[in-house]
Amino acid sequence: MNFDLTERQTHWRDRVRDFIEANIRPNMQTYIDQDNEGERWKVIPIIEEMKVKAKSQGIWNLFMPPQGQLSHVDDSFEFEGPGLTNVEYALCAEEMGRIGWSSEVFNCSAPDTGNMEVFHRYGTREQKDQWLTPLMNGEIRSAFLMTEPRVASSDATNIETRIERDGDEYVINGRKWWSSGLGDPRCKVAITMGKTNFEAKRHQQQSQVIVPMDAPGVNILRHLPVFGYDDAPHGHMEVELKDVRVPATNLLLGEGRGFEIAQGRLGPGRIHHCMRTIGVAEEALAKMCRRLQEREAFGKPIYKHSVWEERVARARIDIEMTRLLCLKAADMMDKVGNKMAKQEIAMIKVQAPNMALKIIDDAIQAHGGGGVSNDYGLASAYAHQRTLRLADGPDEVHARSIARIEFSKHTDLPNHAGVSSGDMAATR
Amino acid sequence: MNFDLTERQTHWRDRVRDFIEANIRPNMQTYIDQDNEGERWKVIPIIEEMKVKAKSQGIWNLFMPPQGQLSHVDDSFEFEGPGLTNVEYALCAEEMGRIGWSSEVFNCSAPDTGNMEVFHRYGTREQKDQWLTPLMNGEIRSAFLMTEPRVASSDATNIETRIERDGDEYVINGRKWWSSGLGDPRCKVAITMGKTNFEAKRHQQQSQVIVPMDAPGVNILRHLPVFGYDDAPHGHMEVELKDVRVPATNLLLGEGRGFEIAQGRLGPGRIHHCMRTIGVAEEALAKMCRRLQEREAFGKPIYKHSVWEERVARARIDIEMTRLLCLKAADMMDKVGNKMAKQEIAMIKVQAPNMALKIIDDAIQAHGGGGVSNDYGLASAYAHQRTLRLADGPDEVHARSIARIEFSKHTDLPNHAGVSSGDMAATR
Amino acid sequence: MNFDLTERQTHWRDRVRDFIEANIRPNMQTYIDQDNEGERWKVIPIIEEMKVKAKSQGIWNLFMPPQGQLSHVDDSFEFEGPGLTNVEYALCAEEMGRIGWSSEVFNCSAPDTGNMEVFHRYGTREQKDQWLTPLMNGEIRSAFLMTEPRVASSDATNIETRIERDGDEYVINGRKWWSSGLGDPRCKVAITMGKTNFEAKRHQQQSQVIVPMDAPGVNILRHLPVFGYDDAPHGHMEVELKDVRVPATNLLLGEGRGFEIAQGRLGPGRIHHCMRTIGVAEEALAKMCRRLQEREAFGKPIYKHSVWEERVARARIDIEMTRLLCLKAADMMDKVGNKMAKQEIAMIKVQAPNMALKIIDDAIQAHGGGGVSNDYGLASAYAHQRTLRLADGPDEVHARSIARIEFSKHTDLPNHAGVSSGDMAATR
Amino acid sequence: MNFDLTERQTHWRDRVRDFIEANIRPNMQTYIDQDNEGERWKVIPIIEEMKVKAKSQGIWNLFMPPQGQLSHVDDSFEFEGPGLTNVEYALCAEEMGRIGWSSEVFNCSAPDTGNMEVFHRYGTREQKDQWLTPLMNGEIRSAFLMTEPRVASSDATNIETRIERDGDEYVINGRKWWSSGLGDPRCKVAITMGKTNFEAKRHQQQSQVIVPMDAPGVNILRHLPVFGYDDAPHGHMEVELKDVRVPATNLLLGEGRGFEIAQGRLGPGRIHHCMRTIGVAEEALAKMCRRLQEREAFGKPIYKHSVWEERVARARIDIEMTRLLCLKAADMMDKVGNKMAKQEIAMIKVQAPNMALKIIDDAIQAHGGGGVSNDYGLASAYAHQRTLRLADGPDEVHARSIARIEFSKHTDLPNHAGVSSGDMAATR
Repeated sequence: MNFDLTERQTHWRDRVRDFIEANIRPNMQTYIDQDNEGERWKVIPIIEEMKVKAKSQGIWNLFMPPQGQLSHVDDSFEFEGPGLTNVEYALCAEEMGRIGWSSEVFNCSAPDTGNMEVFHRYGTREQKDQWLTPLMNGEIRSAFLMTEPRVASSDATNIETRIERDGDEYVINGRKWWSSGLGDPRCKVAITMGKTNFEAKRHQQQSQVIVPMDAPGVNILRHLPVFGYDDAPHGHMEVELKDVRVPATNLLLGEGRGFEIAQGRLGPGRIHHCMRTIGVAEEALAKMCRRLQEREAFGKPIYKHSVWEERVARARIDIEMTRLLCLKAADMMDKVGNKMAKQEIAMIKVQAPNMALKIIDDAIQAHGGGGVSNDYGLASAYAHQRTLRLADGPDEVHARSIARIEFSKHTDLPNHAGVSSGDMAATR
Repeated sequence: MNFDLTERQTHWRDRVRDFIEANIRPNMQTYIDQDNEGERWKVIPIIEEMKVKAKSQGIWNLFMPPQGQLSHVDDSFEFEGPGLTNVEYALCAEEMGRIGWSSEVFNCSAPDTGNMEVFHRYGTREQKDQWLTPLMNGEIRSAFLMTEPRVASSDATNIETRIERDGDEYVINGRKWWSSGLGDPRCKVAITMGKTNFEAKRHQQQSQVIVPMDAPGVNILRHLPVFGYDDAPHGHMEVELKDVRVPATNLLLGEGRGFEIAQGRLGPGRIHHCMRTIGVAEEALAKMCRRLQEREAFGKPIYKHSVWEERVARARIDIEMTRLLCLKAADMMDKVGNKMAKQEIAMIKVQAPNMALKIIDDAIQAHGGGGVSNDYGLASAYAHQRTLRLADGPDEVHARSIARIEFSKHTDLPNHAGVSSGDMAATR
Repeated sequence: MNFDLTERQTHWRDRVRDFIEANIRPNMQTYIDQDNEGERWKVIPIIEEMKVKAKSQGIWNLFMPPQGQLSHVDDSFEFEGPGLTNVEYALCAEEMGRIGWSSEVFNCSAPDTGNMEVFHRYGTREQKDQWLTPLMNGEIRSAFLMTEPRVASSDATNIETRIERDGDEYVINGRKWWSSGLGDPRCKVAITMGKTNFEAKRHQQQSQVIVPMDAPGVNILRHLPVFGYDDAPHGHMEVELKDVRVPATNLLLGEGRGFEIAQGRLGPGRIHHCMRTIGVAEEALAKMCRRLQEREAFGKPIYKHSVWEERVARARIDIEMTRLLCLKAADMMDKVGNKMAKQEIAMIKVQAPNMALKIIDDAIQAHGGGGVSNDYGLASAYAHQRTLRLADGPDEVHARSIARIEFSKHTDLPNHAGVSSGDMAATR
Repeated sequence: MNFDLTERQTHWRDRVRDFIEANIRPNMQTYIDQDNEGERWKVIPIIEEMKVKAKSQGIWNLFMPPQGQLSHVDDSFEFEGPGLTNVEYALCAEEMGRIGWSSEVFNCSAPDTGNMEVFHRYGTREQKDQWLTPLMNGEIRSAFLMTEPRVASSDATNIETRIERDGDEYVINGRKWWSSGLGDPRCKVAITMGKTNFEAKRHQQQSQVIVPMDAPGVNILRHLPVFGYDDAPHGHMEVELKDVRVPATNLLLGEGRGFEIAQGRLGPGRIHHCMRTIGVAEEALAKMCRRLQEREAFGKPIYKHSVWEERVARARIDIEMTRLLCLKAADMMDKVGNKMAKQEIAMIKVQAPNMALKIIDDAIQAHGGGGVSNDYGLASAYAHQRTLRLADGPDEVHARSIARIEFSKHTDLPNHAGVSSGDMAATR
């Protein structure tokens, strides 16, 4: 047990942090202005500009795990990132979380990260050439079509989308929502979860298939706001898949292996989200501390009112603890693998957004009316974090999973809860 | 102590409830469609249509207190509503809270209600003829310019807007925000709080003055979103007042009496808000109960998972208690006056929105991804309720006030906290 | 809806309050001294002295409901109290709650109250003469043997005690605990819950039978402390019933009707407990307010630290709301009966002790080390209130019941949860 | 950052754990029986027996820091323990926390640990020979006289005890309470905090002096129960110091340096307490998990009711996070010293007992009536943990300290709150 960061651990974090402070933070207003100008669903120039810079400095595709951590590795060494461990990347993710759009600058934003990892682990050479290469180059973007509006997707066995074999093709019919990233004009491909066999065992009915966004029958019905935010140009969409036909070779890994793919995907993604969430919470706490020192009420600076001392202390305690838990989970993933880290991953999945929501809410309160507006970025941070209590499995499903493992330590109960693939894909 | 509603108490509540169920609820989609069509800042036809109907049935200006409850009454009996007590009106307000736009249908929406009461209590005959008559007729709307962006408005003595006498006129300079209702094209007048004398005693520096919206120098700078919602066509605006000149006769009540007016205004307004909030919470609970019964996860209907039993039970307990506290405060206002009910008013001001936020948040969780979207009205309800922990004085100021009164029961301490006029005007 | 107390409502409350302030509060130290002297399980003289006084003033057996509220009334008018409604009595109970031992002074302490009501409703003339008369005279005390150590008594159908018919007798075998009041040397009789038929329908297996404490086979095994308190001389005991024989005429109401009796008993008892709890909370808040004004830290009186403003405000809000809910439940019991008030009774059962625990805990914190000692009565109040989250059904069972009723409002689900008879008898 | 335990870190933890499981846990009932037999304030034989065994195995005085961590080291190498780092010892402390009396078996129980460290750091050779040697041998015990009943000791500058120089002696007058350990017949010495100069600067008025328990004028007035528990034979006492005379050589370090000594003492002590608290929480969670699997209610095992899943999950999350934070604080103390770890130490001081109280409370609820009794050790664990929110500085003082440091990161505010020496000494 050693809480010092190694030189390697600080190396990437500091590069990311420095890049953000030098390049991204000074352009925050530019981003807001470009986002608000004209068309909602477009490419935002400052991001493209920053991407070039980040890529040229090699701060790019950092999320891609070391070759050794990929269970289904092959010889395609060209599809590698710089090989950060989960701990190393987690520290970078926290920095990226401080400013919402910085993940994309480093080509590290969801759901591309998860999709790239899936292509890397399970894709054929052809699939990699077609999709993984442009994704890793930051030329296209992608989506993950999982959650459905008509069933409780917290229990992923409820999924109703049909993927039916018809000769050399699969025919896909279903309705998805919270398909994040589909608003982006560069989004070219979606990995889609559905059932190939409704009669198989509960966790062997599902398969994942690659669907090009321009396939006939892929109809974007509407965008879904989060609270009042459209999250453009990324966006969260409701999509109809109507007799969509793809070549049979678009199936990933094999029929009935959709769950297996989903589970491999979700572990790292959760760590990434959680560490970004910690960055969000740190920013909110910093804003709160500054604001409370700037203003006076009832004869003294507000920060001297002890109710705020209690809230700030609580915030600092909760951030520190959550970060440590998150890094521990990442460390376990690095050392003993995602399966053994299952309880820890579930724990931070529950803990991180709940922690952040409380701190952001207090920060809103500290800012008065300004807090609920867009002036301080707090209301939008709240809205986004609120989705993370639902995305990739709601709190309740993870609590169930944690508890079952805990109970199993004191008995011979089976130690797994129902598998959950999430009620909403968590992507931004 | 008698918890039965009297016939008179149910009479108006039932008329309001029946009207809403017969006329307003069936038009919810129409409202949404009209709101989303074209221009954001406009008159929404279905509201005007409903207003005609409500007015013709006499369900109109219900908020206006009985003559006996106005401390500064005069002979102008024409400016009366049907004379409901605070308890009677509170019961109606709960019904109106169930659907956000119904208050306006009955000409009972903030900030017009508070403004009309101010005109009624403190206005001259001329001021009444000019502004109160068209407001009571539902022909124009109004605003209240109180909160300022540059100071902690939770302590109203911080207000910096200047109202300076210059011959027969007052010249007004300052900046206001969260000026709600200014988005509405029918908004013609704003009651404005500022200081006429920066050297007077702390609570005698302020005055209130009538500012026509078309006065030169009134500049709307921008609208402020609430968690991404523009709340159009009502809206919350930031306004610059630059050398705005109004006749000296536009001053209300007298120089240095701004606080006195503000305090008279806020008591009833808080009850109204809180009872509407209870309606909001009831709707959220109903949606939660229905949703939990519609879907299954992990082998049984979700409502049978006991974690939901606990949340639903908590919601029912909290709603019941908050309603009773709110009605008790209203009953005290009716019987012993707003001043004596000060602690009770502060209590429901803190309690009601916090109660509702918890229930809405649970309801969001119950709806999964749908909860954070606009499909169920839950995210927007959350956003609106969140503002009520800040508007008309943040929680902390009311807690201070409640506590000081409590401490004074056990000592000879002075029993009042610093007066707070609110960090944001609560209006919708 | 009228929140004023009627003259009749204040009449009894004021008599109780005045008696307590004039007679009981001045003797608090006497009580403590007598309790601490010599033998633990004894009669405390000051209580007997006070009982004579209270009885002579007619402040006696106040809990006994008006004849009209007893569903199984008979002609035995001699077994009546002064006929207070539930609301009237509830107001008295709050006063009694302020000092733990005052209930007994008015012959209003559990479990005698529930037992007397059971004898009154369901007892034969002979049973009444033998047990009800001396109980109403305050000559003997009684117990209720319900909870069992070996099963989850939260689900009363789990109860294992056997009551078997053998000729003219019933033979009882089982083990009970949390049999409160058995420490008192005057305790002469216990109403005992058990099963007469293990094969009947779930709620018709149980019966209640009168067991004299001197019956052979009634063995008190030990007393159970609550936290570290023995609650002497009342006490909570573990009891073995080993081949205890009673005449068949000792059966109450009939075989298989034990649940029916239990349910009739629990409604009023819960109101009583909850209102006493409110008195407890008021005392704790008063102590907290006084203490915070007496001491200074970091340069100012502690009450001026705003974290305490928030806690005191929360305490006042929660007490007011809980009292109103409790009185509403009592009012419903008076007007529409216990069955119709089922949800309200369950609500206050959950709400009241949780409310009080938070306030007492804050009061402990305000008193520093003194708070956890016996000097301020706070730690013992906490310990006692903590039992009330378990006694007469744990929180979870009541939450289940409230939620099921709530769900049933939105569907045609059956509206009752499993019946719970309590995990511990709540008595003191 | 590395979350694996090193071999050295597990070495001592495992020796402690194995000793406890092999020797102490099998004797839990023996301890209870011996504690309950006869006299309350006595030596408990099983502890003495175990001490011999532990000492002979070298698992003894583990708390004593490595020589390098003592700021005032001297040549007295004989007064050393095995030299564990704070991290290493913290891991052992968690194990000891699982069974309350095991700390003493390893001669690692408060307040001896703090006192021994003080003697080691600041004592003269003569003082060491007289007191440190028998303490390290486990032959005598000691107390720390700090908290006073008449002032808010949360602000240690309030302390009123006088230490006045009179020739070659100091004369001590004052009243102390929560002087833990004075019930033990082996307690021979107390380090006492008082003021030598009421006119000096706020933090230079205090001094610490060695008071032999047999000095005339040391009068134990009473023992203070904690939630009804007398905590015998250790005990918490109220003590009068009346004209107590000690040689001037009994002064520690120098006049006016009492605060300096207190601060050095409290850092490690807090870590020790917090890690023991984590052991307490782990035991409570284990008991809860087992109990929930043993019983059924409403047709299924209680652990399958999802409300318990949520509580168990929360418990596991909170324990993991608190442990990590505690170990991080210990690691910082090892590497950068207590002063630099000030915020972290304050954080775990607030976090650990609050975390444990919630889990123990849930475990009590899971055990029904058994939970509040002595059968499962939960109520006594709750009572003890509750004192830790007050001892060594109440939550509020540490929150203040954490917040001030946090605010100072965003400004040039001075970064320290008022020094607190605790409202109660935390010792058991």
